[in-house]
Amino acid sequence: MPARKSDVIGRIREEAQGVYRRIRRREKPQMKLPIRALSNVTYRPKAGHFQLRGRHKVRTLTVGTVKTFAQTLKMLAMSKDLVGTGRHSTKREAYYQAYNWGEAAFGGQDESDTVMDDVEAMLGVNREQLHFRADEHGGEVAGELIVLDRDRRTGRRIEIDCTAFGSGAYSVPTVVEELGFRTKAKFILAVETKGMFERLVEENFFDRWHCILVSMGGVPSRACRRFIRRLADARKLAVYVFTDGDPYGYFNIYRTLKVGSGNAAHLNEFFCVPQARFLGVTPDDIVEYELPTHPLKEVDKKRALDAMKNDPFIRHYKVWQRAVEKMMQMGVRVEQQALAKHGLEFVANTYLPKKLANVKAFLP
Amino acid sequence: MPARKSDVIGRIREEAQGVYRRIRRREKPQMKLPIRALSNVTYRPKAGHFQLRGRHKVRTLTVGTVKTFAQTLKMLAMSKDLVGTGRHSTKREAYYQAYNWGEAAFGGQDESDTVMDDVEAMLGVNREQLHFRADEHGGEVAGELIVLDRDRRTGRRIEIDCTAFGSGAYSVPTVVEELGFRTKAKFILAVETKGMFERLVEENFFDRWHCILVSMGGVPSRACRRFIRRLADARKLAVYVFTDGDPYGYFNIYRTLKVGSGNAAHLNEFFCVPQARFLGVTPDDIVEYELPTHPLKEVDKKRALDAMKNDPFIRHYKVWQRAVEKMMQMGVRVEQQALAKHGLEFVANTYLPKKLANVKAFLP
Repeated sequence: MPARKSDVIGRIREEAQGVYRRIRRREKPQMKLPIRALSNVTYRPKAGHFQLRGRHKVRTLTVGTVKTFAQTLKMLAMSKDLVGTGRHSTKREAYYQAYNWGEAAFGGQDESDTVMDDVEAMLGVNREQLHFRADEHGGEVAGELIVLDRDRRTGRRIEIDCTAFGSGAYSVPTVVEELGFRTKAKFILAVETKGMFERLVEENFFDRWHCILVSMGGVPSRACRRFIRRLADARKLAVYVFTDGDPYGYFNIYRTLKVGSGNAAHLNEFFCVPQARFLGVTPDDIVEYELPTHPLKEVDKKRALDAMKNDPFIRHYKVWQRAVEKMMQMGVRVEQQALAKHGLEFVANTYLPKKLANVKAFLP
Repeated sequence: MPARKSDVIGRIREEAQGVYRRIRRREKPQMKLPIRALSNVTYRPKAGHFQLRGRHKVRTLTVGTVKTFAQTLKMLAMSKDLVGTGRHSTKREAYYQAYNWGEAAFGGQDESDTVMDDVEAMLGVNREQLHFRADEHGGEVAGELIVLDRDRRTGRRIEIDCTAFGSGAYSVPTVVEELGFRTKAKFILAVETKGMFERLVEENFFDRWHCILVSMGGVPSRACRRFIRRLADARKLAVYVFTDGDPYGYFNIYRTLKVGSGNAAHLNEFFCVPQARFLGVTPDDIVEYELPTHPLKEVDKKRALDAMKNDPFIRHYKVWQRAVEKMMQMGVRVEQQALAKHGLEFVANTYLPKKLANVKAFLP
């Protein structure tokens, strides 16, 4: 559940008061932050994502930390303003706004991003809840869903009917924290490419199968992952993922969507979609449907070997290991659009219906 | 104006009948294609885009051309089917569908793309009119615009109100040929980044200025350019372009949007937006608003020098040359989000209003 506006401001106040109290007591002010590193991470299959182990570092105000300390406090103040006024700032805008912080100005956006990550971890919320956003696409949606948002001009509740965009789609904003949802859909189908998304829209797939189509456009952005997660949680929907049959589709797209990524472990609880299941395209599909393939590239092989060895998620699931091994033995990758070999409508009329008849067979 | 469905099918029939007639007369069948190369291109300031000079090559059926010849005819047949059934095929799907063409199958998508480009040039239509599409985003839209599309299920006309998406937006489909428009907006503001787009949505900019905001997301895709062009033509709207102040923004984004690109000259008449004018960010803005800048990178300098020397568009406009020279002298680039130095609302409350008060000063 997203933190409420008042909660976030409350958390910021708390931190600031802690600092203030120590100063009044003539003690050195401190901030306590969880350590953000893989060494402080564990994979909990039950929670469904990487989690922080709980080790912290304490940042005390000294000559050496004074600049970062000041920046962190200023960043907290900026966030409080944003939440209060209902505005959002891109990470880039935040960096530029800090141009006026005198000696506390940042040397580059990498510095302001790090402080933002610290603030996020410190408060235990995601930066979207602090009203910071990235400059990224949020994915596209079509299907049996009504998104509840507000008209900024009137403040009135508006309903966005995602069946009513014709050949177009609803473009997900970068901050989805305050969206509501109404739906009778049976599942969410998250699709790798816009090409396949538009194919399924054209085939009336969402209408025939009572589902919600999401185009991830490659590796899903935070906004896209958060949207799917919030929607799936709120409406108790199953999430099926449909990517190319290659290491990029399996690990970079599906794995990231499902369990998150290693270097953002303090955020995975917000952004992972533990209910996701992998529909295809699988190595078995290549055989069953005699699909056109391409040889695995060196980068594919490297990615697969690396995942087999180091990825705690793949290592946890035997069936995934078998799928990856089969792919390596076959030495080929397959694209979702390869199904067009059997005609454009094949994916909607044959492939997906056959898959959906046996959801239990989906990879975890 | 887009060719009508029946026109496209008519053109395909015409080509096919030409081939058929020659065969019946026991002559070698032929196809006539314009030469697609910069050497066959001229810049017509009045038309507003690069144009083909009209030189053609004739492809006659021989042992050497038999495969390409067959592929071109098959591609024409595929397009006729698509137009007839109202389906669209991605370029990738087209390549895969051709897996069943026996000896005429393609060795790779580069081959099928080339044949598609040939067909496009031969018929004098764009591939979207042939119902082929790319796998790309089409940009996002918010503002005083109603898009007219059809509900695929019922065939009924639907109206998509682009003021009604809250913090989200309308995602433009990859094929926009059959969209209609209703608007009372005064202009289109095409914006480089999604970050700035969401900033302006958040500031109610389209409401206060009666305009249509388009997020191009970097270099605008064909779909995005075609959307802006069709909308601007249909409703006689001015188009203002708001990018970063760097060679990438000036040449790769603005120049491509306005006059098209060199290697697709046979298409520029469909995809360029001659009515576009450059609002900013300009080198003059850096001085006037004391904006934070970054040093030009080597690639920036190279791009600028190259444009000054070789780009027929820049060479045509003295004011553009002066702007580029000023940038080179200052040795810096500036981002549109740098305006946030003066507060998040500065761009909507001060910068853009001041600019829009003097539209004549925009770069051509």
